[in-house]
This record gives sequence, structure tokens and C-alpha cells, in this order.
Amino acid sequence: MKLNRRATIPPWILIDPLLQNWLLEDLGRGDRTTQNLLVGKKKSGRGEWIAKEEGKIAGLPFAARIFRLLSLDTEFTPIASEGATCARGETIASLDGDLDALLMGERVALNLVMRLSGIATLASKYQEKIADLPAQLVDTRKTTPGLRIMEKYASQVGGAINHRMGLDDAVMIKDNHIKVAGSIEKAIATIRQRIPYPLTIEVETNTLEEVRAALDNGADIIMLDNMPLERMSQAVKLIRQSNKNDRVKIEASGNISLDTIRSVAETGVDYISTSAPITRSTWLDLSMNLNVAS
Amino acid sequence: MKLNRRATIPPWILIDPLLQNWLLEDLGRGDRTTQNLLVGKKKSGRGEWIAKEEGKIAGLPFAARIFRLLSLDTEFTPIASEGATCARGETIASLDGDLDALLMGERVALNLVMRLSGIATLASKYQEKIADLPAQLVDTRKTTPGLRIMEKYASQVGGAINHRMGLDDAVMIKDNHIKVAGSIEKAIATIRQRIPYPLTIEVETNTLEEVRAALDNGADIIMLDNMPLERMSQAVKLIRQSNKNDRVKIEASGNISLDTIRSVAETGVDYISTSAPITRSTWLDLSMNLNVAS
Amino acid sequence: MKLNRRATIPPWILIDPLLQNWLLEDLGRGDRTTQNLLVGKKKSGRGEWIAKEEGKIAGLPFAARIFRLLSLDTEFTPIASEGATCARGETIASLDGDLDALLMGERVALNLVMRLSGIATLASKYQEKIADLPAQLVDTRKTTPGLRIMEKYASQVGGAINHRMGLDDAVMIKDNHIKVAGSIEKAIATIRQRIPYPLTIEVETNTLEEVRAALDNGADIIMLDNMPLERMSQAVKLIRQSNKNDRVKIEASGNISLDTIRSVAETGVDYISTSAPITRSTWLDLSMNLNVAS
Amino acid sequence: MKLNRRATIPPWILIDPLLQNWLLEDLGRGDRTTQNLLVGKKKSGRGEWIAKEEGKIAGLPFAARIFRLLSLDTEFTPIASEGATCARGETIASLDGDLDALLMGERVALNLVMRLSGIATLASKYQEKIADLPAQLVDTRKTTPGLRIMEKYASQVGGAINHRMGLDDAVMIKDNHIKVAGSIEKAIATIRQRIPYPLTIEVETNTLEEVRAALDNGADIIMLDNMPLERMSQAVKLIRQSNKNDRVKIEASGNISLDTIRSVAETGVDYISTSAPITRSTWLDLSMNLNVAS
Amino acid sequence: MKLNRRATIPPWILIDPLLQNWLLEDLGRGDRTTQNLLVGKKKSGRGEWIAKEEGKIAGLPFAARIFRLLSLDTEFTPIASEGATCARGETIASLDGDLDALLMGERVALNLVMRLSGIATLASKYQEKIADLPAQLVDTRKTTPGLRIMEKYASQVGGAINHRMGLDDAVMIKDNHIKVAGSIEKAIATIRQRIPYPLTIEVETNTLEEVRAALDNGADIIMLDNMPLERMSQAVKLIRQSNKNDRVKIEASGNISLDTIRSVAETGVDYISTSAPITRSTWLDLSMNLNVAS
Amino acid sequence: MKLNRRATIPPWILIDPLLQNWLLEDLGRGDRTTQNLLVGKKKSGRGEWIAKEEGKIAGLPFAARIFRLLSLDTEFTPIASEGATCARGETIASLDGDLDALLMGERVALNLVMRLSGIATLASKYQEKIADLPAQLVDTRKTTPGLRIMEKYASQVGGAINHRMGLDDAVMIKDNHIKVAGSIEKAIATIRQRIPYPLTIEVETNTLEEVRAALDNGADIIMLDNMPLERMSQAVKLIRQSNKNDRVKIEASGNISLDTIRSVAETGVDYISTSAPITRSTWLDLSMNLNVAS
Repeated sequence: MKLNRRATIPPWILIDPLLQNWLLEDLGRGDRTTQNLLVGKKKSGRGEWIAKEEGKIAGLPFAARIFRLLSLDTEFTPIASEGATCARGETIASLDGDLDALLMGERVALNLVMRLSGIATLASKYQEKIADLPAQLVDTRKTTPGLRIMEKYASQVGGAINHRMGLDDAVMIKDNHIKVAGSIEKAIATIRQRIPYPLTIEVETNTLEEVRAALDNGADIIMLDNMPLERMSQAVKLIRQSNKNDRVKIEASGNISLDTIRSVAETGVDYISTSAPITRSTWLDLSMNLNVAS
Repeated sequence: MKLNRRATIPPWILIDPLLQNWLLEDLGRGDRTTQNLLVGKKKSGRGEWIAKEEGKIAGLPFAARIFRLLSLDTEFTPIASEGATCARGETIASLDGDLDALLMGERVALNLVMRLSGIATLASKYQEKIADLPAQLVDTRKTTPGLRIMEKYASQVGGAINHRMGLDDAVMIKDNHIKVAGSIEKAIATIRQRIPYPLTIEVETNTLEEVRAALDNGADIIMLDNMPLERMSQAVKLIRQSNKNDRVKIEASGNISLDTIRSVAETGVDYISTSAPITRSTWLDLSMNLNVAS
Repeated sequence: MKLNRRATIPPWILIDPLLQNWLLEDLGRGDRTTQNLLVGKKKSGRGEWIAKEEGKIAGLPFAARIFRLLSLDTEFTPIASEGATCARGETIASLDGDLDALLMGERVALNLVMRLSGIATLASKYQEKIADLPAQLVDTRKTTPGLRIMEKYASQVGGAINHRMGLDDAVMIKDNHIKVAGSIEKAIATIRQRIPYPLTIEVETNTLEEVRAALDNGADIIMLDNMPLERMSQAVKLIRQSNKNDRVKIEASGNISLDTIRSVAETGVDYISTSAPITRSTWLDLSMNLNVAS
Repeated sequence: MKLNRRATIPPWILIDPLLQNWLLEDLGRGDRTTQNLLVGKKKSGRGEWIAKEEGKIAGLPFAARIFRLLSLDTEFTPIASEGATCARGETIASLDGDLDALLMGERVALNLVMRLSGIATLASKYQEKIADLPAQLVDTRKTTPGLRIMEKYASQVGGAINHRMGLDDAVMIKDNHIKVAGSIEKAIATIRQRIPYPLTIEVETNTLEEVRAALDNGADIIMLDNMPLERMSQAVKLIRQSNKNDRVKIEASGNISLDTIRSVAETGVDYISTSAPITRSTWLDLSMNLNVAS
Repeated sequence: MKLNRRATIPPWILIDPLLQNWLLEDLGRGDRTTQNLLVGKKKSGRGEWIAKEEGKIAGLPFAARIFRLLSLDTEFTPIASEGATCARGETIASLDGDLDALLMGERVALNLVMRLSGIATLASKYQEKIADLPAQLVDTRKTTPGLRIMEKYASQVGGAINHRMGLDDAVMIKDNHIKVAGSIEKAIATIRQRIPYPLTIEVETNTLEEVRAALDNGADIIMLDNMPLERMSQAVKLIRQSNKNDRVKIEASGNISLDTIRSVAETGVDYISTSAPITRSTWLDLSMNLNVAS
Repeated sequence: MKLNRRATIPPWILIDPLLQNWLLEDLGRGDRTTQNLLVGKKKSGRGEWIAKEEGKIAGLPFAARIFRLLSLDTEFTPIASEGATCARGETIASLDGDLDALLMGERVALNLVMRLSGIATLASKYQEKIADLPAQLVDTRKTTPGLRIMEKYASQVGGAINHRMGLDDAVMIKDNHIKVAGSIEKAIATIRQRIPYPLTIEVETNTLEEVRAALDNGADIIMLDNMPLERMSQAVKLIRQSNKNDRVKIEASGNISLDTIRSVAETGVDYISTSAPITRSTWLDLSMNLNVAS
């Protein structure tokens, strides 16, 4: 059975520059409405964020940080836990503080949390299909440019395991790399001797011959890409029976849908990767109710 | 009838820093696979991008620029026009040049174009529902953090008109602003005298009384927010009959769907704003076929 | 009669990066004098800023922020209000805190406030000439590179209204654009359909024919550029009598001086734009008296 | 007699980031007029820059670079030499290339050159007053925030010598530093032992006692600050007659105007520093004539 | 026997910002000597880099890029291959091009290559001690702040394999992590379920009990930290005999010197990590001979 | 006798961006070990830094700042003074605060202080050789790219005086500059008239003729480069006897070692420059003992 995992917030020193850029993207040369209405007058506001449809919430800690970057006197307090399923109409966070910060940060913070919650919601649907099987749901590098660290976080909130975060933290040998090298054997050998040694090497395979080559040449992860189910089962068997390496991990990839994921998991693979929770999800609808303090 | 518009590419001096950040996000400390396989050897590749589902293509000029930033010897040539509807299996672009640039830029470029094409595809579905009516589809500030200039571009490719690009290029007076000011009249008066004078002021209204107040106090744009259709028609009539200002623009907003957009357009509003093409679209599936040059 | 307006301070998240760059420009590799004298010893200082000539003060909130960025223990307290006219010898602000921050921030803060006060002072002279007329003074895009947000702020403190802040927040069709398009009609039509719809279009005109073309094709603002007074009066009449659009704004531009501005205003235009308060002003002389705390 | 000096252009690797920031300041989210008119169509233009008043030209190489950053196909060719005096109506540069680059870069490039030429023009007026005397005109750290490297360049074009560029390339001991140290002697001693040894130390003096203390303790430069002419002459004599140091440089500062500069120079000082060419100059009026290529 | 490896140059899009920062660090406000001597005159130079002591060369491709960033007309041509051992007096590169670029880039380029060559030289001495044994030399995270990507490159040129590049591309569980978790078992279990799944987990061990715990709980790499040789041998045996996992890698760490490295390698470990090539190396002395073209 | 100098910490506004970059270099996409173990749980730690070999400590204030940038609740308290000689085993600093900040900042902070302490240690060995003579030890521009401000600080902690910090804060005329100019006379004359006037000019000389030319033409500093001791003595005599300029400073350079520095100092030069403390030093070994608070 799978453990109950909590997603990990990276250190703020990494995240703050992103949040600042996003605030500046929306502010441009300033908030013409709010700043010209208040003109320096301190007003405070109080409000809450409401879920307008059912779904899993992700990203509230980042929303809290966005308001903090705008004003140290403003508090955004998550009510829903990350990954909690909220009903339509449920209050997921409360806000209290400088009215101008609340108004200037609203759109950016909501946009982020709506996008992330949409991902977590769909990821959890995939994950639930295979919750009782050993196979784990994993994501891919198909993420919105500039948002990867966030979208992979949301994917984790939704129950997925992250795959590599970029081109640098693991090797993935695909058909073109094999063509350049001449064979899977040569590709693995050439790359293995040059990479930082703790990195793992994954090889994309389509046939059982390729699976065998990957296995024989020390691949750490073997991806069964777009294989029919029967071939996938054979590949899993081939790998498990090998004495060569009892630790090789098996990843299934390609054409994973809510309909197919369970049968893929039943082949006995360790990981099932799909971009769907990120590329096929829509935003979870949220809104902010705000009251000017009297 | 609406004119055939082409979307506008902002100057590269604005766009290049975004594209570079996105490449660096994916590269991290480098492409462990490609660079350790080629190790400085120059190989060239040739390939094409294929649409794996039907949809409208948006973003190819940005893809071309991404590859150019990686290598001056690499050419990405759009075959499909921006906004063209491509069939499943159709070739939408060809590539030719340094193999390492082609492999390192692939994911970022595809991610961007898949996201933008998904938006253009859904935007065009909304637009088509009202193509023969004077009302224009417009987008909102609900955009993915960091991607607004791109997503608004895709929205335009799909047939929408852009609404304001941020908090700075137009005023939008909402309920909280009105509460702070005391009335629509005071809110408009206070803000009008401080903003750059070419900027327009939009007021969000829910009732006919608010519509009248906005009209009487010189709003440039009146948003009819979440109004029932009948009230919306009355509001349009009220505004059109006014002698006060023959130029005020009317925007309908709230609960716009593919089912409702046409009846909203038929009330006679000028603009219908919805975030759906951006928040409800999924990515258009594309893939890259690449061959190592022999 | 014109309202008493206060200028608007943009959010610090926008302004801080500017102020930091300016401090770094002056510091270079460090303040060789102060830091090598104090070498980490905490000394405190107390002082005041004195106006050395009469003028309108602008920019003190930015000065306060500059010292804050250097030291959280340092307080710069404006005494003069923004826009107040100070006599020679008057104290306009007091300072209290870390001596090294006071000495390292002094030049940058004074440079900024002297420049901004010079602008506010000259702007207010132009504004006073037309204070009892409906015409409003506006600025232009002739601003010092890198300083626009500040100089436009000072212009506002001096009584002007800001014109557009850059190439992006309104359209300005000039002769070359008209040549490219073929006619004013085509230029407006081509641009109108592509811009974010809340943006306004201004057309520069030199003749009554051009005024009429701009009016007939829906320009939001008509600039009467370098027209003789008589022609300007005719243009104003032509526009006001039109039934086409009771909201078009009229801007006079070109050769505006303290001698001519009143007669231009008397033609009935709404706005008079001139770069003079920014390009023709000199710095207001200010100095800092500082005492090392015993 | 003074040599004919040419001002020095810093390496582009230093300057380009400034120019890019200034272009982005004006562009904001893009040039709504030009880019929505041309929409990717390549048009070319040809034109010239005209002096609209007499003055000394400074900054054309930077203007050329600005257009180059926007388009490699655009050529801005200076006709006037840096520092040349141009008559009203004279053509000072020609332009040829991409119309959109010409229109997008126009304002930024003109703003810069107008500001710099204004400085060069006024600096040269000060310089001419003392051209036949050994004293040299120098500038100060009173420069527009963010523009120092440019304004000091213009000052040099106008005939001045640059003073230190920031707080880091020379030491300047003022009254507060002396108070902290206890005496001029201690201030010099404390600082001398810690600074990079090639740096020079300047001491600000108001009395002959201070001059003597500075002289006796090894100041490299003695500033005679706001001294009456007679005292200044005595100070110069005192320094010149000293055997202590035949190399100490003497700088006069304070209340330098076009009326007073010559009599100050006649006291025999080496340098006369004044911020006037930068803080008291107005912009030299220039304009761009541009023709769309047929 | 170990393969002959070539070190990998990361893509320039990653490296250029570093090189630019380093040039700006040295330039500050400009090269007072060269730019004030040449003042825009184009002079060309030609020269060579000479090894002033014997050692292994590393970093020439970065030097070439540094000069290229300063001038497109300047060519730096490596003569020595990366990793080649050069004799004292040997020419390792030739230069040809703009004199000012050659003079402005000289120090930064030499500093980098001298530092990197010093590392490669010492790394190769360690590597040679174990060249005929299967154990591989690896580096650590003890690198000069800001220079890691370069120093790890030099380490590779010298014959080492890179260890992880930062805190993100592999897990390293040390004593404090174990204390927080309660046991090695819990630490591995907690972390394994949250990390991107291709990442490996290394556990630092001091005793055989810890080795066994790491082995039993699925560590991918077991570090034998500061163990006496005998215990290290026992640990290797324990791990190799285990049936649990035939793929676990063994790393020896702590007190590795040129004297001890061989006996450590003889215990049968796979990797020997030491910071010595980076923390104990001195710069390889190089100089530039340059001639002004007549 | 030389005064006891303390090294100078530049303002944090200059230093913080460096420290942040170095933290991000190590963090990459996050600390996979610590953040996935703690997952937001607040744990605190307490520890100390221990010297593992004897040496002079430099850089503790920067270490303190590094931890502060990660967490405001974390305190790093230097115990050793900057420049103090610590024995093997001595505690040089204590730490207290957030465990995750302590673990994430450890490597970067230690790397910096180990590098800087190594420099200070070797610099002090050179300095001690000449401690009773008037000659002062100075550093050079041979510094690790990106680390100059730190390495020059450490050099100062070790007892050296800083030479110029970059190409901008003093002039250094070398053989190639002289060839371009035609003579030392012309080189000095050309440069002198263009540089900021407080800057000094140093001329590199190899022969007595060159020394005389430098002296006669007003060099501020004369470098005796790689001269045999006898010639160096003659040069010193020649300069001291000159009546031309009693203030010229004499710097010896080239082939300075611990063996030769004293005899060079005895020739009577003012400064002896050598890169050895920076290019020939190794890191001082330090370690962190950390305990998780129970």
C-alpha cells in the first residue's frame, strides 16, 4: 500500500523571484485602479477564498507568500490543507490586512492556486484508479514554461511522484540518442562514464529486444513506451526474471488515460508516467470575497 | 462582419528573456543525455512537427526563436500559418540544424506551442458561436503566471480581442473599490483625475441602478457582470438610448459558456469576456519527428 | 475648476529595484571613505534636508525608501508635503539613524529629489498659467531614460496630468503611421481591431482635413499638433459641433511655452501637452545638514 | 594650453544592459501603434536627425547602438562628430533600415542624445570661460540616478574632466568624516591604511587651518570649498609654497557660475568642480525626420 | 581499465551569463587604461598563451568564449587539447583580433584557465595513483562559490568523475538527517517517497551496523566515511556478499591523500571522493604574450 | 611600524546578491535531502564550527549573513575575530536556529570561509616576513572570477593592502600600452587627460631608462617588474633622489616568494605585489558540528 505523502515546498529563496516576477507581470507600471483610489490612505480588508467547484486544493502556501511580498501587514491563512478535497462553496483560506495588497495580489494568487488545484484534482483521479496497486503515478517534463517547479508540486499534491525535474537530474536515452550512438549499448556506455555518478540512466524501449539491450547494459530505469499491454507484460516478466539486476525500475508511458491506467498498472510496472494531469486539466474555479474594513 | 485579424508578435527584445528563462528552467545544470553523448561533436538533424489531434496552431514564431537562441545554425520553419486549423497527422513545421540544439529545445518549444494551440483552439470555438453577430469575444486577466503575453497572443490567434494586459493599462472599478469610495460617482471622479488621461475606466455593474450611475458619471466601458439575460437586455437598451455618451462600450461577463455565449451576444453587448479559452482549454497534442543526419 | 490632486506612489515592489540600482551605481565597489573610517563601528547621525532655493518639493517618499533599503534602523521623515512650495532655507525633512547609511544614501537620495523637485516646480508654473481654465497640462514621453516613472510622478506633483506612460498603454498615430497605412481611416481601422480593446487611439493632426478624418473614423483623442491658434480654434469648433462623438478629447501640442500656454488653453482644448517641465527644468537646490551623534 | 580631448566610450558589454532597460521602459508590453500597424510586414524607412537649436552634440554612438539592439538591419550613422557644435537645422545623423525598429527606438534614442547634448552644451560654456587658463573644469556626483556613466561622458564631451565616478574610486573626506575621526589627521590616517593603495584622498577644507592640516597629513587633493576668493588665493599660495608635497592637487568648489568661474580659475587652482552643466542644463532640442521607403 | 573520457561543455546559454558577470567584475566602470589610450581607434593584436609551469590544461573553450563576448572580430584558438599535459614554455593557445578586447579580456580569461588547470593538474595526480584499479576518483561539493560548474568541469578534465552537482540531483543522508528521522530506515523511507523517483539515495556510514542498515533499506550508494582500512574492507565484503542488491555503489570518503588513495582503492570500493583537487590545488602559471599589430 | 588594520566589510546591498547566487548554485531545484525529510516541520539545531588545522580565520561575517538570508530565526555567531589565528580544534563560531537553514547553508558558508581563511593564512605568512620593514604587501587582479571582492577582503584580513580592485579604479600602463602609444611619455599624456582626475597612473618598468621616463612624465606609481635586486635598488635610489616628485610610490612585482620577499623589501620599495596568497593558497580545513535540538 502506498504511504500518505505530503508535497514539499522548496525554500523561499528559490521561489520568491518567481512570485515577484508574476506580480510585476500583472502590475506593469502599477495598479491604476487601486492606487489611484487609495492614494496612500491605509485601508484594511478582510475576506476569504471560496471554492466554486469541488476539487483538490494545491498552492495555498504560495498564495500566502504572494501577499506577504506585497505587505508585511497582510496575512493569508490557509484553511484547507494542501491536497484536501473541498466542496463547492467551502472556504479554503482567510485574508486580513492592507486593502491595497489584497487587491493587488488577488489575481496572481488566485490564478496560481486555480491552476495548481486543477492539476492536483486531475492527478488524484488518475492516482485513485491505481491506489491499491503497487504502481505509482508519475509526471513528465510536459509542463507550462516557467511553471515547472509549481506544476510538479501540484502533481505531487495530487498523489503523483515526480519524474526528473529537467534535463539535468537524470539521463533519458531516446531513439535519436540511440541512433547517434549506434546502439543502446554504446549510448549507455558513452554517457555513463561522463555523468555525475549518482545520476540514473533511463532508456526508452519499444520492443523486447530493446528491453533486453537496456537490461544487459545496465540501464537503471527501463521505459516501456507505447507498448501494447501484452508486450508490456512480457517486458515486465523479462526484466523481473533477469538475474542481472534486481533493482531496475520499470516505467510505462504513452496513451495513458483514466480508462487505461489500471490495466497498465496490472502488468506489474513500477511507475506509470503521463502528462495528462498537467496538459489535460482545467483550472479549479475559486473566488475571493473581500470586505473593506469599516 | 468581423475582419480577419492577425495576431501581433511583440518585439524580440521583450520576448527573448522569457524564452531564455524557459530554456534554463529545463536545462538546469545542462542536458546530461545529449551533451554527454555528443561531447562537442557536431551532428545535424532534420525533422518535423506533427499535429496529433485537430486544432488551431498558435506559437510557431516563438518556437522558431527558441531554437535560434540555442543555435544560429538551426532553422525552424513554420509550415502552418498562425491560426490555421490543422488536421491530425498534418506537418506544421520543419526543422533543420544542430542536433544538440534540436534536442535541447524540443521540450520547451513543444510545451509552449501545445499550450498556446490549445488556447487558440478553444477560443476559436467560442468565437465561431458569435461570428455573425457584432459582439466580440474578449479574454481576461485569468492567465497562467508568467505566461500572460503568450496566452493573450494565443487568445488573439483564436479570434478573441485582448482585454487589458494588466493592472496598468486600463481602470476596472469593482465592488470593493466602490465601497472604499462610497459610490460609483466618487470612485470614477477620484480615479479619473489621477490616471494617465488616455486610459479608459470600466465599471463593473450588477443592477440597472449601477449601470445608470456608471453611465451618468462617464464610465468608458460598462461591464454587465453576471446579469440574467433579461436584465442585460434592459441594460443595453438603457445605455444605447442615453444621449450622454454615444461611445460607451458594453461588456458582458460571468458564466459564459459555449452554450450561453450566443444568447448573450444577442442582447447587443459589444464585448463578451470569458476566461474559458485560457482556463478551460487543454493542450493540443503535437510531437516532433527527428532524424539524425547520416 | 480643477480638483486638488495628490500624486500616486506606485507599489514598492515596482520601485525598489530602481532604487537599489541607483545605490549600486553610486557605491560601485563600496564607499571607500565612510566604510574605511567606521569599519563596522556603529555611529548614529541626525540631520535635516534644507531647501536652498524656493520651489515645489517632490520625491521625499522615495528618499525615505532609499535610506530604508540601506538600513532598517534609519528613519527619513518628510516634513514638507509632496507638492508644497518651500522657501529658501526651509527644512523639508529630518533624518535619524545609522551614520553610514546616512552618508552612503545621501547623494542618491538628494540627486533624485532635486531632479524631481525641479520638474514639479516648473510644471506648477505652467499649470498656474491655466489654473482657472478647463484645459489641463499633460506631459509627454520625453523623459530621462530609466527615470520615467519618477519624472511622470514629479510632473503630477507639479499639477500636470500624465499622458501615456509608454508605447503600450495607448495608441498614437503619427504621420509615418498614416503613410504606411495609406490614410488615417486605414490606420485607425487596422490598429483598432488588434489592440486590447480598452485602449484609446490618439491621432496627430496638422490640418482641418486630418482633424475631420480622425473624427470621422473614431479617434478617441485628436492631437492638434503645432497648429496656429486660429486653426486650432477652428479645429476645436469642428470637433465640438460634430454629432459623431461627444466624447472625443482634444490635445494641443507643439511650441508650448509659459508665454503661449494660456492662449492655447483659451482655444478650448481639453489638454495641453508639453515636455518643458521635464526637458527645460533645472534641479532644485537642496542640501543635507548632518551631525554625528555624540 | 589644454589638449583637445576626445571622450571615451565604455565597452558595450557595460552599456548594453542600460540601453536595453531603457528600451523596455518605453516599450512596456509592446508598441501598440507600430506593431499593430505593421503586424510583421517588413517596411523600411530612411531619415535623419535634425538639430532644432544650436548646441554641442553628445551621445550619437549610443543612439546608433540603441537601433542596433532593436534590429541588425538598421543603421544609424552619426554625421556630426561628438562635441561638434551644430547649427539650428543641421543634420546630425542619418538612419536607414527597418521601419519598426526606427519607430520603436526613436524616442529613447532622442531622449538620451537630447539630454546628453544639453549637458555638453552647457559644460562647454563653462569650459570656454577658462580655456586659456590652466584650471580644468570638473564635474561632480550630482548626476541623474541611473545615468551617471552617460552624463559624465557628456560632461567630458563638453570639455570637462571627470571627477570620481562613485564612492569607490577615490576618497573624499568631508566635515562629518572629520568629526567622526576627531581630526583631519586621524581621518586620513585611518582611511589611508585600509583603502586600495592606488586610490587618492581628497579633503574638503573651509579654512586655512584645515588646508594646512590636509597638507601636513598627506592629502592628495585639497578641496577649497566655498571659500571667498581671497582666502582661496591664500590657500593656493600656502599649498604651492609647501615643500611637503609638490604634487598635491587643488580643487575649488562651491558657487561656481558662468560669472564667477574665471576669477576662481585665476586664483591658480588646478580644478574647478561644478554640478551646473548637469543640474542646470536643459535638453538640446532635436527631432527625427523619417520617410517610409516606397 | 578505465575509458578515456572527454569532459563536457555545458550549453553556452548556461555559461554566458557567468562569463559576462566575470568580465563586468573586472571592468567595473570600464578599463581606464586601454579605452583611454585607444579611444575608439581600432588596433589589432596577435599573441599567444604560454604555460609557465608543467601541468594539465583545462578551460580553453571558456577563454575562447570570453574574448568572443567582447568582440566578434577576435579569435582565441586553443592549441593544447583539454586535459593535455603541457611543458613549461609550451604555447597553449593563440590570439588574434581587436587589441582592446584582447587587453580587456586577458586577466579574466587567464584567471579562469589558471584556476581550472591547477585543478585538472592535481586531479590527474590522484587519478594516476589508481589508474589501473577499478576505483574511480570523484569530487565533492567543496567548490568555490559561484564556480562549481567550472571546477567540476576541470575535475573531469583531470580524470575525476563528478559527484552530485548540488543539493538537488541526488540525496545524501548524513548523521543529522538520521537523528531527525530516528533511524536510517526511517530516513530512507521518508525521503524515498517524496523525491523525483529517478534520483538516487546515498547514505553516509561510519560503522558496519550502519552499512547493514543502509543496505537493508535500499540505499543506492553507501558512503564509507572516514573508516579505517580494515573496516572499509569488511564493509565492502558485507555489501558485495549481500543478495539484497547487486547494484549498490560503494564510495570511500575522508582523509584521502596522494599517499593513502591507492590503499583505499585496493579495498574494492567503486568510488573515492575527495575535495583535494579543488581545495588543495594551486593555480597553474600561464601568461599571455601579446604584440600590437604594426 | 605598520598599524594594526581591520578589514572592511562592504555594504550588504552589494554583497547580498553574491551570497544569494551562491546559495542558489548549491540548491539548484532544492535540497532533496533536508526538505523531503522535514517537509515543513520546524526543527531547530545548534552547533559550532571547528578549525581542523591551524590558520587565520577570514569571512565569518559573510557566513553569518548567508544563514540570515535563509532564515531570520537563525543566528551564526562568530567566536574568532577576523584575522585571529586559530589552533587546530578550536571553535570559531556557534550556530543556533532552524535546522533546515543550518543544513542548507552549511556547505556554501563553509566553502567561502575555508577559501578566504586559506588566503588570509598565506597572506599573513608573506606579511610577517616583512613586518618590521616599511614595505607593504599588496595583492593583484589574479583572483577567482566572481570572487574578487571576497578574496581581496581575505587578503586584507591576512595583512595585505589591496591593489586596484579592477580595470577602473587606477591606470596601469604595461608594455603593450606603451607600444600603442609610442612611448611612456605619450602613453601617460594621452591617458592622463581623459581619466577621472583623482585616479592615479602606474607604469610598469623593466629598465632604469623606463623608470626615468615614468618618473619624468608624472607617473604616480612606478612598478619595478621582475627586476634583479641590484637594479631594483638602483631604481629606488633614482626615484628617491629625484626632485621631480617626492610622492611617487614604488611597487616591486614578479617572482615574489616567501624566500625572496624580505630581500625585495630591503631594497626600499613601498609596496610588494604578489598573487601568491590568492593563487598559491589552499583551503583552511573547517568543519561544522551540528546537533538536532531534542
